[in-house]
Amino acid sequence: MSESEADKKEPPGKALCALDIGGTLAKLVCLVKEEEVSECEGDESTPREGGPLTTECNGETFRLKFRHFFTARVEELIDFLKSRELVKPGQQLPVTGGGAYKFEELFAERFKCTVAKRDEMSSVISGLDFLLGQKGVAYKYDPNKEQKVNVELSRDIYPFLVVNVGSGVSVLRVNGPKDFVRVTGTCIGGGTVLGLSHILFGAESFDEVVRLSEKGTTELDLTVRDLLGDSAGSGTLPANKTASSFGRVYMKGVSKTCEELRRSIKREDLARSLIHMVSFNLGYIAYLVARIQNVHRVFFAGKYLNNHEPTIASITRGMRFYQEHYHGLGDEDLDDSVAHVTRRGPRTPEEARGRAMGEAGGGGSSLSGRIEEGGEEDEGEGGARDGLPSLTGGRYRSMTFFEGQQQYRQEALLSCLILLSLWELRRVSLIRGTGR
Amino acid sequence: MSESEADKKEPPGKALCALDIGGTLAKLVCLVKEEEVSECEGDESTPREGGPLTTECNGETFRLKFRHFFTARVEELIDFLKSRELVKPGQQLPVTGGGAYKFEELFAERFKCTVAKRDEMSSVISGLDFLLGQKGVAYKYDPNKEQKVNVELSRDIYPFLVVNVGSGVSVLRVNGPKDFVRVTGTCIGGGTVLGLSHILFGAESFDEVVRLSEKGTTELDLTVRDLLGDSAGSGTLPANKTASSFGRVYMKGVSKTCEELRRSIKREDLARSLIHMVSFNLGYIAYLVARIQNVHRVFFAGKYLNNHEPTIASITRGMRFYQEHYHGLGDEDLDDSVAHVTRRGPRTPEEARGRAMGEAGGGGSSLSGRIEEGGEEDEGEGGARDGLPSLTGGRYRSMTFFEGQQQYRQEALLSCLILLSLWELRRVSLIRGTGR
Repeated sequence: MSESEADKKEPPGKALCALDIGGTLAKLVCLVKEEEVSECEGDESTPREGGPLTTECNGETFRLKFRHFFTARVEELIDFLKSRELVKPGQQLPVTGGGAYKFEELFAERFKCTVAKRDEMSSVISGLDFLLGQKGVAYKYDPNKEQKVNVELSRDIYPFLVVNVGSGVSVLRVNGPKDFVRVTGTCIGGGTVLGLSHILFGAESFDEVVRLSEKGTTELDLTVRDLLGDSAGSGTLPANKTASSFGRVYMKGVSKTCEELRRSIKREDLARSLIHMVSFNLGYIAYLVARIQNVHRVFFAGKYLNNHEPTIASITRGMRFYQEHYHGLGDEDLDDSVAHVTRRGPRTPEEARGRAMGEAGGGGSSLSGRIEEGGEEDEGEGGARDGLPSLTGGRYRSMTFFEGQQQYRQEALLSCLILLSLWELRRVSLIRGTGR
Repeated sequence: MSESEADKKEPPGKALCALDIGGTLAKLVCLVKEEEVSECEGDESTPREGGPLTTECNGETFRLKFRHFFTARVEELIDFLKSRELVKPGQQLPVTGGGAYKFEELFAERFKCTVAKRDEMSSVISGLDFLLGQKGVAYKYDPNKEQKVNVELSRDIYPFLVVNVGSGVSVLRVNGPKDFVRVTGTCIGGGTVLGLSHILFGAESFDEVVRLSEKGTTELDLTVRDLLGDSAGSGTLPANKTASSFGRVYMKGVSKTCEELRRSIKREDLARSLIHMVSFNLGYIAYLVARIQNVHRVFFAGKYLNNHEPTIASITRGMRFYQEHYHGLGDEDLDDSVAHVTRRGPRTPEEARGRAMGEAGGGGSSLSGRIEEGGEEDEGEGGARDGLPSLTGGRYRSMTFFEGQQQYRQEALLSCLILLSLWELRRVSLIRGTGR
């Protein structure tokens, strides 16, 4: 039965639970009465300032409880639902994710219920709308403090992007509470981490990969230093920056047999390189898409994040990469980096000429000349600055523009990056279905 | 000795060869007199319409010959140079890449020569400038014919991006023959493919991975179909599109031990998924950066491409993804896809309203309202169209805008994507150093 047909009927009562069945995990949320909370298994959402998340249903207040199952072992989920009598005959069971289609008949047959299919992206957005204004539900990563910090959300934050990280990754542009469009995605996501780590070192769950990665080093990644010996090299990137994920493996393996190499590689290092590769790329793509879409806030949601600091740290660094790369800024303190670039003289006569041209506002074409070209130019706030490289013949622009970028970057860090724990976001979004 | 100091002296003669020493491979180009060509080992560049590449040096014409060595086995390179007497005492040896720093002392000591360090990016750009106007040096992939086709280059193609794919990846914006800036990069590149395939199935070279991948299937990747059962699902992507690289591994492994799983996975499939993952991501990022930089041509260069059609096919699909994803267009013939989307009715009442609003030019905010906001809007050709999602309340825009996008997309395919064999590009760029 399609969603619209189901909606036309007078609902015969809705189940006190809802499901999000993805490619890897099936996520369950249950509504539990306050007095029954202690009897019901399942994680509460992370303890937060505002207390546990609750929702109203038929005039009663319910606490939210969460569990997850493997999609490939859907029978375990069915057993759990049956043993708790969470779905009664004739009730509507709200389900989102691909599993809403895949398992519709199975659930209908086992529970004599109606599967009320909910669009996954609509669920995420209405869940986010539900969370806006609540306390302690969103955080961002502070690269200076090297820890996540809570972010208070107001309802006046549109437009923004939501990067929903599951097995695959969807990127949504949200213009208002019910106004969104799926703009793009990437196939390098949670499924990539789980799939590769399963082959590489037999990981059984994403949590296992995360735990291992916390003890790992960057041993397997090629850094800028590796590429340039001990020299400062081209000077556009700090020496400790990753130049190539897993790029050092081959160098390590040259004098070893393949079996010797495998034995010498630590699971922890594999996990760390894998999570860094995928997370950094996610942040990087999110930043590029945000620039094209001209939005200044990005939310990340999905089990992939799951309160794991190294993951959100890599995403955050990925989001900063495009602007940092331009100017040779690294993870060091910002003022130090500026000083480093300022002190460094041009390396070649060409570069010296380029810098001089940049400072004089000359070069291949002047700034005013470019802006007069009109329609072909990107005249957005960030875009206009990025249109400037033609002012220089070398690698760096003059310090004037550099400082301009620096200011923009700080603003971007203040306003642009808010990481939302998906676990919370997704769970609540499902509950919205039961309240309709 | 620094490059600028070396340049001040009267050159005592330059070696008839040049080197590009990267993180994985050391690439050598030799100048060979026409009458000695048959005696000299090494690959000619790919046979082309315009005949073999030649260059002038001290009034004589030389043919270009190429070889590569593993950077970690630099002694083999030194033995080769010595046995052919390619570098004579007192000569200048032009070297670029990180190895120019790393091996400067080693080469100076062994050959009593001067290492003339060349900036890698400048070499790539001057090499590209050398190639512009030559016949048969550039190609693009035609997704309809499913093969690469030659592209004739004029000198009037600025500005453009160069995506230089080595162990790591650099993206340059080139505004003129000597006017370029390194804008960004990614750490998912050739080193990632080689490193992961070395651990996963003991691959010894990139060519081996490429050969294996040609026999591989998409067995390990999660497709949109997997996520949505047999349903058309959210309708924004065709069912055969990759949703998650390596995302099916975990599903395959649920009822197997890790060792059973490993034995059941084919090297060919691993190679294919790996090359697709990295190549698609390269094309995708290149497209996003090109949009932000407002340039309409992108060159790909580097050993990574090496005339391998599946690789450039994935890069090409990655470059088309951002626009396709928006509208549910897939790898099918364009007209078929348009028809598919046209025939499909709205799935929900909300979506129907969204489409109606889009067609009437109404919605959350009107088009004129948005453009009047001025500076905050991206008003570039493509950007203005991307600013439109707020016209719709659902997932699709009206067909009017869709057709507009379609037209833009075809133009983009005609003008935007030119793939340059790096092997040729890089080799020739080095020769430029010897002619200075």
